[in-house]
Amino acid sequence: MVMTYGSTDRHLNAPTLGGYAQSIVVTEDFVLRIPANLKLAAAAPLLCAGITTYSPMRHWKVGPGQKVGIVGLGGLGHMGVKFAKAFGAHVVLFTTSPGKVADAKRLGADEVVVSKDEAQMAAQANSFDFILDAVSATHDLNSYLNLLKRDGNLVLVGAPDKPLPVAAFPLIFRRRSFSGSLIGGLPETQEMLDFCGEHNITSDIEMIRMDQINVAYERMLKSDVKYRFVIDMASLN
Amino acid sequence: MVMTYGSTDRHLNAPTLGGYAQSIVVTEDFVLRIPANLKLAAAAPLLCAGITTYSPMRHWKVGPGQKVGIVGLGGLGHMGVKFAKAFGAHVVLFTTSPGKVADAKRLGADEVVVSKDEAQMAAQANSFDFILDAVSATHDLNSYLNLLKRDGNLVLVGAPDKPLPVAAFPLIFRRRSFSGSLIGGLPETQEMLDFCGEHNITSDIEMIRMDQINVAYERMLKSDVKYRFVIDMASLN
Repeated sequence: MVMTYGSTDRHLNAPTLGGYAQSIVVTEDFVLRIPANLKLAAAAPLLCAGITTYSPMRHWKVGPGQKVGIVGLGGLGHMGVKFAKAFGAHVVLFTTSPGKVADAKRLGADEVVVSKDEAQMAAQANSFDFILDAVSATHDLNSYLNLLKRDGNLVLVGAPDKPLPVAAFPLIFRRRSFSGSLIGGLPETQEMLDFCGEHNITSDIEMIRMDQINVAYERMLKSDVKYRFVIDMASLN
Repeated sequence: MVMTYGSTDRHLNAPTLGGYAQSIVVTEDFVLRIPANLKLAAAAPLLCAGITTYSPMRHWKVGPGQKVGIVGLGGLGHMGVKFAKAFGAHVVLFTTSPGKVADAKRLGADEVVVSKDEAQMAAQANSFDFILDAVSATHDLNSYLNLLKRDGNLVLVGAPDKPLPVAAFPLIFRRRSFSGSLIGGLPETQEMLDFCGEHNITSDIEMIRMDQINVAYERMLKSDVKYRFVIDMASLN
């Protein structure tokens, strides 16, 4: 169930408590079913990182026979790797951190490219059908656009706060596209959850107690989390 | 017939003279048919400005019921207006020059927006299915991306030499795309010429003599041409 915080509860006429609530009354159209085989804590991030990566790959029809890149191995990127692999694609994870290579392969990546290595990047030129870019920091998009095949698409799901310089020629040659995508609607979120149930996909999480949240926040700022923190609400009592 | 310059002629074993040749021997697969009803001089620019604008509008399926923007009224843009209108779209031409409004309407634009006018731009927000951007100078792409509907596409056929800053949010919200397109292949060029024959479409041209080429070049640099110069090769003799 997706619980928003601070809205007015229609029945109680009092503010809702979102994720802090013990119970909530909600119109059934806005309730999602979590498949019974998924652990609830590890399913929680599917409702944000899951649908955000699932939706664009479904929209642009990622599937078998395709080569798919995922840029960045964080909360979004690690779900991108799992979904792209489950859709049957050949998955290449791009990271700036050589230390993430082993974990990317464990999560399902067929190849891992350390993006600071120009020779590794050049070897991937003109070969991708689709690239999911999950990086929110400023980064060089043009070097990724040049990795796309004709009609390939790079889709941004990270949200860098400053505009990114995009050169005309990587797009004009090979008719490439640079797109964005934002989360997903309720029917597609249910579809994603059902897909996760069938393929036994959840987020890799670290469960913390409520009193660990400040440390978790500091670690999150340093990208030191594999790959989402989930708060055990029982620890609030 | 498309004639390239400086290749080696397969039969004469001498350099080809491209557009300066009186005759050329060429494999028939590389010959295009110009429909008999089109004036040759006005058809000449179709082989570059024509196919460059026709191809992306066909690829992204511009048609009736759609609202299509064309950015810039030059050699490419004026062909974009003609094709978008012939495909049945509602056509809006964007220009920085209030002096081009009347001509844009003559060419087929249903609306003309002076892009320096923020109120006029704001009135077009979130309303376009497709925008063809034919501007080669540096310009603000984000203000055009914000005019696209959900799943709308802005396709660049101009070629600015410096990278253009693209903000993440105009793409992420509404799942918009920014793409590029480069000329077109031979089968689609023939399709375009046949379409022009059926719809009596040619380029608006100014025919010049060979000895006027320096003046024409200076005028072209100032965008002072409606809308392509064509050299009368008979004037070379």
